[in-house]
Formats: sequence, structure tokens, C-alpha cells
Amino acid sequence: MYHFRNDYSEGAHPEVLAALCATNLEENPGYGGDDHCARAAALIREQCCCLQADVQFLIGGTQTNFTAIAAFLRPWEGVLCARSGHINGHEAGAVEATGHKLFQAETGPDGKLTADLLLPFLEEGKNEHTVLPRLVYISDATETGGVYTKAELTALSNFCRSHGLLLFLDGARLGAAFAAESNDLTLPDLARLTDAFYIGGTKNGALMGEALVIVAPALQEGFFRFKKQRGAVLAKGWLLGVQFEALLQDGLYWRIARHAVEMAQRLQTGLTGLGFPLLSPSESNQIFPIVPNSLLPVLNSICTYEVWSRPDEAHTAVRFVTSFATPQESVDGLLAQLARSR
Amino acid sequence: MYHFRNDYSEGAHPEVLAALCATNLEENPGYGGDDHCARAAALIREQCCCLQADVQFLIGGTQTNFTAIAAFLRPWEGVLCARSGHINGHEAGAVEATGHKLFQAETGPDGKLTADLLLPFLEEGKNEHTVLPRLVYISDATETGGVYTKAELTALSNFCRSHGLLLFLDGARLGAAFAAESNDLTLPDLARLTDAFYIGGTKNGALMGEALVIVAPALQEGFFRFKKQRGAVLAKGWLLGVQFEALLQDGLYWRIARHAVEMAQRLQTGLTGLGFPLLSPSESNQIFPIVPNSLLPVLNSICTYEVWSRPDEAHTAVRFVTSFATPQESVDGLLAQLARSR
Amino acid sequence: MYHFRNDYSEGAHPEVLAALCATNLEENPGYGGDDHCARAAALIREQCCCLQADVQFLIGGTQTNFTAIAAFLRPWEGVLCARSGHINGHEAGAVEATGHKLFQAETGPDGKLTADLLLPFLEEGKNEHTVLPRLVYISDATETGGVYTKAELTALSNFCRSHGLLLFLDGARLGAAFAAESNDLTLPDLARLTDAFYIGGTKNGALMGEALVIVAPALQEGFFRFKKQRGAVLAKGWLLGVQFEALLQDGLYWRIARHAVEMAQRLQTGLTGLGFPLLSPSESNQIFPIVPNSLLPVLNSICTYEVWSRPDEAHTAVRFVTSFATPQESVDGLLAQLARSR
Amino acid sequence: MYHFRNDYSEGAHPEVLAALCATNLEENPGYGGDDHCARAAALIREQCCCLQADVQFLIGGTQTNFTAIAAFLRPWEGVLCARSGHINGHEAGAVEATGHKLFQAETGPDGKLTADLLLPFLEEGKNEHTVLPRLVYISDATETGGVYTKAELTALSNFCRSHGLLLFLDGARLGAAFAAESNDLTLPDLARLTDAFYIGGTKNGALMGEALVIVAPALQEGFFRFKKQRGAVLAKGWLLGVQFEALLQDGLYWRIARHAVEMAQRLQTGLTGLGFPLLSPSESNQIFPIVPNSLLPVLNSICTYEVWSRPDEAHTAVRFVTSFATPQESVDGLLAQLARSR
Repeated sequence: MYHFRNDYSEGAHPEVLAALCATNLEENPGYGGDDHCARAAALIREQCCCLQADVQFLIGGTQTNFTAIAAFLRPWEGVLCARSGHINGHEAGAVEATGHKLFQAETGPDGKLTADLLLPFLEEGKNEHTVLPRLVYISDATETGGVYTKAELTALSNFCRSHGLLLFLDGARLGAAFAAESNDLTLPDLARLTDAFYIGGTKNGALMGEALVIVAPALQEGFFRFKKQRGAVLAKGWLLGVQFEALLQDGLYWRIARHAVEMAQRLQTGLTGLGFPLLSPSESNQIFPIVPNSLLPVLNSICTYEVWSRPDEAHTAVRFVTSFATPQESVDGLLAQLARSR
Repeated sequence: MYHFRNDYSEGAHPEVLAALCATNLEENPGYGGDDHCARAAALIREQCCCLQADVQFLIGGTQTNFTAIAAFLRPWEGVLCARSGHINGHEAGAVEATGHKLFQAETGPDGKLTADLLLPFLEEGKNEHTVLPRLVYISDATETGGVYTKAELTALSNFCRSHGLLLFLDGARLGAAFAAESNDLTLPDLARLTDAFYIGGTKNGALMGEALVIVAPALQEGFFRFKKQRGAVLAKGWLLGVQFEALLQDGLYWRIARHAVEMAQRLQTGLTGLGFPLLSPSESNQIFPIVPNSLLPVLNSICTYEVWSRPDEAHTAVRFVTSFATPQESVDGLLAQLARSR
Repeated sequence: MYHFRNDYSEGAHPEVLAALCATNLEENPGYGGDDHCARAAALIREQCCCLQADVQFLIGGTQTNFTAIAAFLRPWEGVLCARSGHINGHEAGAVEATGHKLFQAETGPDGKLTADLLLPFLEEGKNEHTVLPRLVYISDATETGGVYTKAELTALSNFCRSHGLLLFLDGARLGAAFAAESNDLTLPDLARLTDAFYIGGTKNGALMGEALVIVAPALQEGFFRFKKQRGAVLAKGWLLGVQFEALLQDGLYWRIARHAVEMAQRLQTGLTGLGFPLLSPSESNQIFPIVPNSLLPVLNSICTYEVWSRPDEAHTAVRFVTSFATPQESVDGLLAQLARSR
Repeated sequence: MYHFRNDYSEGAHPEVLAALCATNLEENPGYGGDDHCARAAALIREQCCCLQADVQFLIGGTQTNFTAIAAFLRPWEGVLCARSGHINGHEAGAVEATGHKLFQAETGPDGKLTADLLLPFLEEGKNEHTVLPRLVYISDATETGGVYTKAELTALSNFCRSHGLLLFLDGARLGAAFAAESNDLTLPDLARLTDAFYIGGTKNGALMGEALVIVAPALQEGFFRFKKQRGAVLAKGWLLGVQFEALLQDGLYWRIARHAVEMAQRLQTGLTGLGFPLLSPSESNQIFPIVPNSLLPVLNSICTYEVWSRPDEAHTAVRFVTSFATPQESVDGLLAQLARSR
């Protein structure tokens, strides 16, 4: 079986696991008040060229999304997002459960937001009988493999600042975004253009963990208490620090992402070559080929993947995802088998 | 330095870590839908003699407490707990943040609840302009080292059932409770006497993880969705299953707890022998000796611990905690040094 | 000036006000535990042919909507509604503030929901990582003057029951709905086909007040406590009872509604006759003619109304609303003035 | 029957009712955007000597308490109050339902808070694993008839400001407080010493309504949206403006309060003369005599009142409350009957 189910289907990258093993019997203070977290946070501030940033480690993506959003907003404020945004359809209403409405914009297939899509919501929000639109949520890479360019993010950032909106970037797959061919964004760009963003560990080589970078000083106050209140403080908090140290101190994080994206792109190119259309072309480590339903039994017998959507009665869009744990042999093996079964 | 700061100051027990390493590159479905979680849940149901139980793995104690409590209650219902209960003073208002009031009973120094302490709240709760008392929260072992006997838990359970109250037991330190000398409770007893309880991993040898056992069928509905909504579903969920398998399949969990409690009791006995009074005698892996303030500089130079309270101006109650990572040499070494400095 | 701004722009119908004055110095128990509320509730149960119903008086529509919805749902459950539904765009996120997601269906211009519009949400909701769709919210009359027929409501009710969905009907303008020409629904029909609905007082002759009829016994438990918790229990609760007694004991409620709808329909017919198109034809006491922007200064000088939408750059859809306080002279006077200014 | 059940057991003071009747058929914009509300707000700002204040009208006390508190706080912040405070035991957990913990201080029988009672909570609150104490809630008059002096309120205000705490005063019975013999506070004092307070209408002559005065500019932002979200915006909002105009434009509010307090004090003096002890002496319009249980059947046959507490097995503390609707004949009549039955 070739494994393309997800980028969180294996444990940690071996170097990350080694770091956990090496520090296993150290005594550390709990709740993130340890030296590993301090060093990992310092690394991140440095690599973001943003010494004022508050770096907070959390355990997973859903948790980071709703904890950050709810910490940043007042109760009468709401969130602007893509209808396909992770917080809208994949997190069991976690943001609404904190009391905040989502305004859902209909984007193109790449899942990217633009100022034009947001303006009508701002217009309606002027009525004091409605929720005040206040925070724009984007993900990079998006849920469908879209990647923001520096020009796009700059335009969105300018729009937000001129309309009193906060800009929050979900970086659960930030590694894949930065490894994409068209990417020209850097960590310092994110620190300059957003109010907060996170560097996702879970989907890029860690057992678990997301590093939230709160850039805007006004958003930093009280965050630890709130994180604790939402069950998002890991007792053995240094486990997150150790992993981000291992990932970021010499570029392992980016090497992992590059490998994953290369494998996904190799697979996408191969599948296109075999004549499979794409739901939408992806630049990230997730790809979305469309296969005839008759091929599904074959697929099921040779690889793991997820069904994404049903573009018509005879076809299925499937999702293949790659990670640090995807060997090139899997990509080439899958392509070879599919070539034979065409 | 001798380490007595906490029972979550080191990583995983070596056998648990070995299990994580051995399975690191397995491909597993995410979110707990894997075979390890299934096997760990089956082990727990079996060891509880309770095939109907729904076993849910969560990441940490605060998270498990508020997720379970909020899932079980309707919005107008509240929680009865000890004023010293973990949910009251140590979890940043996590339960209130889900909308539920805590009724706080003043217990004795052992932190244990009794029917007598609860009755006045039930009386007030009959008034429809108040929150309806509905769930009793206890911890075993308690935050101050108290341990429930079977007779005590049976009495509390009967009281709850006759008054329409749910009984929820926080087992973050369940191992230590069961390893205590006076303990006569078993897992099947908990499954019989409570509506839900959990077997704490974080403080007994796991990197993280709590196994929530929802006994009452009426409380099981919808729990996974709610867990997801509260950010309490680990993406690489099998990490929890692997650890609980390792802990429970051949009794490692109980061996770890027994060791920790033996070390704590050896230390408590030794300290008493040296003439230190106790804030209250403990049977668990946490002990609370009272030391003259003048001893604190010495303590600071030889061991880690926590300041607990200030019984008077000249004295400090400190907390020493033991775990799988506490060698007997630490206990004996600390006692020897203290004997010299008296 | 002719007054068409809203149906809550004047105080109470004179007969309702007289009842309040007549009882002003009675001593009554607070919070709705009085004889007037008891009698009004009994009248409603009787007129609904539903002796099991729990009748609860609340103060306003937004309050009734979110209090009922949040009382009926568990935290992981969500609401299906029309995008144009009052709870979605006009209540400042009140439902989301109780933690529940809204799934917004795109309806036709009449704002009415059908099974077909709901099915895709149910499909997505099978995924346990999403909110469970659980309650269908409809309004009758809708926000754009649509009115449900018995056949339509029966079909929706059957759909809900076969899919485990609750059906909740916002009756803020129930009087107008029942006074509409095509209406064939009755109170007993509502009690039979929905799980809960309300009879709106604020927009049909009362100073304030909505009578919530909770039909399903399983939804009745704990409601008073929850109402109190949400600030929805009026201290001088008998004020609501007195008004609903006055409105319902001899049909005043329906006479008020009939008058309002007659006035609105007379105005709609007249405007159509004058050549103004309609945004969508309305059967209720709200009508939505489209006027050239050049007419707005004239309108502003002769009547009150609200701007509804901008169908194109040169035209504005406006809303005229009628009530017990709309004399036929206002309708005819407005039409005459508009005829002159054409 | 003599009526002493409550100060919200009759409708409106006749002059207030007359104002409502006189304006009943005026057309007014909804939701408080009318001239009556504007004038009433201007009167209040003027009488408070506080032109910066934002005056917001709400419907009832519980609603005003939780709406104000939740609007002012961030999610990790909590409320300091007396255990006997109205928000703690009489409002069905409304504040906790907005997510905020209450820290309950044990006061004397007068229910008044002091700096000394608050300090221990501030000490505990320094721990970042706890809720941050942030707002002090007091009521004047208190729930047991206590009244703050200017010296006491000044001391509390200074304490709050030096510790970064907000001070919020529940004035549901502010009229009675100001009419108390020992009172030396004025509205400008409240505006100077608190961050927000309210002038209660429901218990002092209005059908319903509380006028919230938000003094601190930082607390004013977004309040209308939040009020709407919590169902606290009355559709026919001018009803509140009309009543507060009537109450405040020529001192009716204070005349009502003076009458009520005179009646209560006359009754308290009379009861003491008859030998009944007091649970605690009250200066307000609520008094708490202790009667032998054997007297209860007599009481039940001659007056309405509430049972307050059971100081011992043979005695009951009862509560008598007076209002604008209490004639002196009731007081003297009750005293005469009790004199006979002694």
C-alpha cells in the first residue's frame, strides 16, 4: 500500500523524535515555562525579524484557531473567512462555540480571499443590529492547495488595516505554502503583514504542536490565561519547545516541507500525464485529481487517500497528501500501477 | 538537585516512550480512529468490567474536566465541588467559561466531599431563580493527597443517585489513589459508582493523555463532535492509544503509581521523623510538610518543590511530588541533607 | 406624514393599553407566577388544542429566538435557516453568541425553506468533524412577506421528523401570516407540525411580549431557569399575561392582524396600479415596492418607511409596514400623493 | 391583605403610567433611537454631572448585570462580589453563563464589600493559571438593606483604581439607597467613583427598565451591538425613555424612593417596638424582622411577604418590602394587627 491519506498519518520526523528521546528524562518546569520553549520562541522571533512578537505553543490546529480568534475579539465581533476555510466546515463549530459569527465568502477554487470578496460584508456590518466584522481568517496554503503571493497578501493586509480589520493567518500547512513554486513570502513578511499567524508543526514533522506568533502587542495581553482556560496548555509543555527547536534551528522544517511538496508535485505532474484532470491545480502538498468512479476499487487496493467531492455522477475528486514520510518510491510506484490499470 | 517539583516534570516512562518509537512510522488514520485507540479502549472497558462504556482519549486534565462537564450538562445546570477542587482554583475558570456555575463546598484538609456538604446547595437549588445543581465533581486522589474509600464513594454515589445528580471523578492522579495504603477501590467500582471518570496518563508515565470513561449511556451521545469543537481531538490520535496500550496491557500503569506513592510515603515518613509537621497527612504521591521559612534557602539549593501555603508568618507548607522518575536515592539523599541541616 | 416605518412604531392597541391601566395597581406575584399569565397560557393551550404545551412569555423576538434555540440544542448542534432569516442578519449574532452555528440556505425571494434546500447540509453534517444540523428555523410570515401554506409546512414537518430535526417557527409576525389571503394554517396546525413556535405580541398590538409555545415535552424541561439566566424573565411578568389575555380572549389579536394586512395589501395594490414594480409580491403586512431614486426626496417628505435594498443604480426597494395604528386614510393619502407626483 | 411582598408587585407609578398613555400613539423610531430616550439620557448625564457618560436603557436587573459585566470583561477576567450579591444567588448563573467566574467574598450581614475582603482574591489571581480578578460588583442598597456611605465608596473606588479593577454598582434599588438616612452619596459621586452603575426603574415606579450609566469611555465601545446580541434591546425602546423622563425630570424618582423608605422604616421601628428582633437593621425599603414560627399563620392571613431564612428551628426571618404602592395605612394596619396577636 502506498500512503497518501494525510500529512498527519505518521508520528514525528526521526530527527524530531530523536530530540524528544534525548530530553525525555530531563526535569523541566511545566506548562511551557521551560528553556526549550524559551529557545524555540527566541528562534521564531529571530527568524521572523520581530522581537516584539509573543510566541505561544499550542497543541493542534482547531485549538489554535479558536483560541486565537476568541482571545482577539470582543463578543460582538465576527470573523470573515472563505466558505472553504478550515474553521467553517472542518472544526465542528469551534469558533461559533466561543460566541463569534463567521461571515463566509464564496471564493474561487483556490480558496483565497480578496478585498473584493470582503467589502459587501463590511457594508452590511455598518448596521448596529449586526455582528461587527473584525477579523479576517485566511490559511496559507489553503484547504485546496492555493498559495498566497506577496502581492496578494500585501493587498489584503492593506485592506484590513484601512478598514480596522485584524488579519490572522492559519499556517497549519505553512511549510507547504513556503515550499510552493510561486511562493515569494517569508516569515518576516508574515510578521509585517498579519496581526498573528502560526507555524504548523503537526502537519510538518512534529508529533503535535503549533507555534502561534502574536505580532500585534494589543493582542498579546492575557493570552496565557485564556490558553489555559481553553485546555490548550500542555502540562509537559517543553515537548512542544523541544520539537520546534529541532525543526527550526537548522532548517529541518523547510526541508521537510520541500520534500513533501516535491513529492506531491511529482505525483500531480504524473497524474496529469496519465490524463487525469485536476479539480484545481495545487502548488502545495495536497493534490486533487479527478478519477472515474470505476477506478476507485483499484485505488482502494493500492493506496490510502481521501474522497474529496463528486464533480459528476461518474467521477470522484480524490485527495492525495504527502509528508516527510512519503518516499519517492511511493509516488513512482503509484503512478506505475495507475499507468498499468488505465 | 533532587527533583520533587511535580509528577509531570519528565517525559514518558521509558516503556511508553519505546512504544511510541516503535510505532512512529506506522501509517494510522487520524483523530483516534485507529487500531491502537480501539485496543486501548477495549482494554479499559475490560478492566472496568463495563462493556457499555464509551472510552474517549483527551490530551490533558483541564481539557478533560471542562469538556466532559460541559458535554454532560444543560446550560442551566451547575457543578458541586470542593473549594480546593482542581476545577475551581487551578484551571483559569475553564468550567465557567463553558457557562456553568461552580458551587464550592468547604471540605476538611483532605479535600473530600460528602453528602452533608452538598445538601445545603441542593436546598437552595430548588428555587427556580438559581442554577440547578446537577453534577458532583470529585478528584481521587484529591489535590491535597486525600483518597476515597469504597465506603465513602458508595455513600456519595448513593446520595447522587437518590438526588438526580451525576457523579464525575477526576482521575488525573487515579494511579496514586489506587496505590494508596487505605485504597480499596477498583476500576469496576468506579464504573459502577460514577457516571464518568478518567484514568490520568499525564501524571503517571505518559507524555500526555487522559482516558475518559463515560459509563452512563445517556452521556455518550455527541461526545466526539463536542471534543472536536473544544480542540480536544489530537490529530495524531493514535499517540494516545499507543501510550495507554503500553500502560495498561500488563499493569505498567499500576507499577508506576506504586513506585511514586512508595517514594512519597518514604519521604513523608522520613520528614515526620525529622520533626517536620504535615499540613495534612497524605496517602498519595504528593506530600505537604511544613518547614520553617529559614530552611527555604537550603531547600532551594538542594531540590525542586513548590510552595503551597503559609500557615503562619514563620512557616511555609511545601509540596513534594514523586513520579516514575523519582529514584529512591533522591528521597534518601534529600532526607540525609535535611537531617544535616536541622 | 404618513407612517409606514414599522409595526413596532407605536405603543399598544388601545384595548391592550386599557387592560394594563385597569390592572396597574393590582398586587401580583413577580416573574410570571400570576393569574394573568396562567389564564393567558391556558387560553393559548386551548386555542392550540394542545394541553401538553408549555407556554412561556418572553419580552422580544431576538430574545425569544436565541433563548428557545439555545435551550433546545446541545452544544454540538446547529441551526438550519434561510440566509434571509431574522436570526442570521438582524440579531447581532445572538444565536452564535450562545455557541451554535447557523447553516444558511439560499432561498427564493419569499424567504421560505424547503426540504430540498436542507438536504445538502444534512449530508455534510454526517461527518463527525462538523456541527450536527439539528433545528430548522423558519419564520411565518417571513422577513420578505412570504407565508407558508399548510401543504408546505406539513412537508417540512414530515421532512424534519424523518431526519431527527426539530422545527421551530418564529411567529413575530404570525398574525400577519394568518391574515394573509393564501393562509390555511391554524394554531392547532402549528402545534401539530412544529416542536415550538411563538405568537408575537410586539408587532401585533402589545407594548412588548412574545408567547412561546413549547409543544414537545422533551424541550420543556428547565426552560424557566434558562429564561431567567438569559435575562428574559420580566420582573413584572403579569404585564405580559395581561396583554395576551386582552389580545386572545376575544380575537383582538386576529382583528389587529387582519386590519394591518388589509392596509398593506390595499397599499400594494395601489402602488402596483401606479406602475411601481415589487421586489417580490407580499401577502403580509410588509410590502416592498421598487421606486426610482428620484422619488426618494418626495417619499421622505410625505411618509416614514425603510430603505430595503438597491436592485440597480437608479432604483431603490423600500419597505412599507402597516399595523393596528395605520388608518386607511394614510394608505389612501399616500397613494393620492404618489399619483400626483408621478 | 396588606401588601409587602416586593417592590415590583404593582405596575407603574400613576404619573409614569400617564406618560405612557399620553405618548401611546406617537410614531417613534424603534430600538431606543427616539427623542424620549435621547432626552432621558441627557437628563441623566446632566444630573450625574457627567457629559461623557454613555446612557443605555435595558429592561431588567439580571439582564443589565450580565450584559454590562460581560461587555466590560475579557474572557479570562472574573468578578469579585459578595456571596450575598444578587448576581451570585438570584440570577440563575447569568454571569457564569457569559463565561465569567464569580469570586465570592463573605461579608457581614449588611452585604457590603471592603478592600480587606477583596485582597486575598487579588493575591491568588496573580497566578496565571487562574482567572484574573478584574471587576468589583456591588449593589447599593445591598440585598439585605445595607447602604454605602461616601467614605466607604470612596475607599473602595480608590482601592479598585490602584489595583486595576473596574467598579460596577448595581442600582436596582438605588432610589432606596439614596433615600436612606445615612446616605451621603449623590449621582455625581457615583459617576466619579464607579466605572459604571445603573439607576433602577423596575423597583422604583416604572413598568420595567434600568438606566445604565457607562462612565468610563473605554467601556462604551460596541455596547449597543452587544445589548442587541443579548436580547436586551426593547423594540419599542421609547417606552423606557418615556418612563425615565417622567421619573427624573422633576424628581418623581426620589419622591417615590423616599416614600418607600419612610414606610419601611416606620414598619421596622414599629416591629422593633413590638419586640421583634431584626436579622440585621436595614436602612432601605426592605426590612428583615424575625418572628416566631407560630406567628406565620397569622402573617399569612393578613399580609403578603417573603420568607428569608431560618435563624433557628423556632424562628423565621421574613422580608417586608415597600414601594410607591404602599399606603401608610398598610403599615399602621399591619402593626396594629400584630400588636393584637402578640
